[in-house]
Amino acid sequence: MEKRRGTRADYRHLLAIPTRWADLDAYAHVNNVVYYAYFDTVVGDYLVRHGALSIATSPVIGLVVETGCRFFAPITFPDIVTAGLRVGRLGNTSVRYEIGIFRNDEDAASAEGHFVHVYVDRGTQKVPTPLPPILREILTPLAVSA
Amino acid sequence: MEKRRGTRADYRHLLAIPTRWADLDAYAHVNNVVYYAYFDTVVGDYLVRHGALSIATSPVIGLVVETGCRFFAPITFPDIVTAGLRVGRLGNTSVRYEIGIFRNDEDAASAEGHFVHVYVDRGTQKVPTPLPPILREILTPLAVSA
Amino acid sequence: MEKRRGTRADYRHLLAIPTRWADLDAYAHVNNVVYYAYFDTVVGDYLVRHGALSIATSPVIGLVVETGCRFFAPITFPDIVTAGLRVGRLGNTSVRYEIGIFRNDEDAASAEGHFVHVYVDRGTQKVPTPLPPILREILTPLAVSA
Amino acid sequence: MEKRRGTRADYRHLLAIPTRWADLDAYAHVNNVVYYAYFDTVVGDYLVRHGALSIATSPVIGLVVETGCRFFAPITFPDIVTAGLRVGRLGNTSVRYEIGIFRNDEDAASAEGHFVHVYVDRGTQKVPTPLPPILREILTPLAVSA
Repeated sequence: MEKRRGTRADYRHLLAIPTRWADLDAYAHVNNVVYYAYFDTVVGDYLVRHGALSIATSPVIGLVVETGCRFFAPITFPDIVTAGLRVGRLGNTSVRYEIGIFRNDEDAASAEGHFVHVYVDRGTQKVPTPLPPILREILTPLAVSA
Repeated sequence: MEKRRGTRADYRHLLAIPTRWADLDAYAHVNNVVYYAYFDTVVGDYLVRHGALSIATSPVIGLVVETGCRFFAPITFPDIVTAGLRVGRLGNTSVRYEIGIFRNDEDAASAEGHFVHVYVDRGTQKVPTPLPPILREILTPLAVSA
Repeated sequence: MEKRRGTRADYRHLLAIPTRWADLDAYAHVNNVVYYAYFDTVVGDYLVRHGALSIATSPVIGLVVETGCRFFAPITFPDIVTAGLRVGRLGNTSVRYEIGIFRNDEDAASAEGHFVHVYVDRGTQKVPTPLPPILREILTPLAVSA
Repeated sequence: MEKRRGTRADYRHLLAIPTRWADLDAYAHVNNVVYYAYFDTVVGDYLVRHGALSIATSPVIGLVVETGCRFFAPITFPDIVTAGLRVGRLGNTSVRYEIGIFRNDEDAASAEGHFVHVYVDRGTQKVPTPLPPILREILTPLAVSA
């Protein structure tokens, strides 16, 4: 993981996610846990809205096998977060998403992380399965070279 | 609590709150718990943005003493919720907020509930305290006659 | 809803639920939202452990149609909550659960609330359906006369 | 990060954390986000119970600067999670905690991750500060050689 603090231009897709009162912890910061809720929201929103995921019926689904995040500066409520999304690696059976979390109008990320999906058959949820073609198609524009 | 299912026109202030993947429960509905996170978000957002609450420094704060919600129809992800807010009772030391939860472009509420704050001194958090004048001022436009 | 603050003896089943760091809000109290997560945990735990609910396969399921809570005193982290459960009304197609939230070793409830399930066919999720016999059987010992 | 799936013996302190209904996502698995709530619960519980953290008054506090998790197998509700805790690095101004998540009676971890605190003055929350002596004392027994 590189150490430079990214900016919005490092990402290919942006989604606004308002913070919630319940996101705050006892120090009145958005709790570290909640950043991961922003991560799977920007990913899931993109997949559903582009037709690559039906939560109820998709025969293959992505299971999360690894996530991580580095935190640079706090966020609070009622900030508006913008989540930036790019694809760091588009594999045969897996995708590595990279996410930047931007506070209000700031251009430097408040946090950056990753989120790895492995695709499996929904029934057995065991054996990795090739990414569905529609998924590969919609993710290609988000891919960055490493 | 009246039984009619409200519409957007029954509320005085509206706030868009996108659902999150983590809001869903095992039935792929937004979990009943999460509606209350929408409630305190629409209230807190209004108070902070109108200058009636500083989370770190306000000398009197509202403590939640009662909440309730009736659920009419499910919401899912990635729906956009609009939370409607009105003030059902503006008391001496307490406020009763009433909230409607609207799914995407629907005009009939998916859920409606209430949320009662009692104001207390931040230090002791015991004795009810008169509402700060700025709070009364910003809530008056949201008040409805019972 | 009666106004007396209940005690453990007012409930028929008890479940320990440790608080979590993320339960706290910016005032270092367990956020009001989280009490409802305790509510559906004590209900769901009881149903699954007594064989009345299989999250993946039950052909009829309970949908939450109403919840409410009154808050008497704050809870913090790392308190251990004990959730008390009783059945206030065992209807034909619905159940009203009543829940008390007890902090650490305290006998007086920190909060009390209710939670109403209406049973529906899992496929259509529309028409109320009689409670499954196993459910009625396991809830009868929790029922209190009104 | 090593790739072997750890066991309970790899950790120095264990804490039981029951899952909650609201932890489940739309696939009826505990959502990836929630594992991080288990992480900061096992850490915070240890710190508060051993006298190294007072949420309201500690003059220096730990801010989370990095977290990560690998997920090996799903957890559901009403599973009981046991969180295992060890200290991977006890620095001058920071601590790296390592956490294993164990499902029910299983000895192989369902997930393993890490959580890095940097200590700062509570007021400014900027400049890293030496770990308080009490913290160093209570964490030493949890430390493992790398």
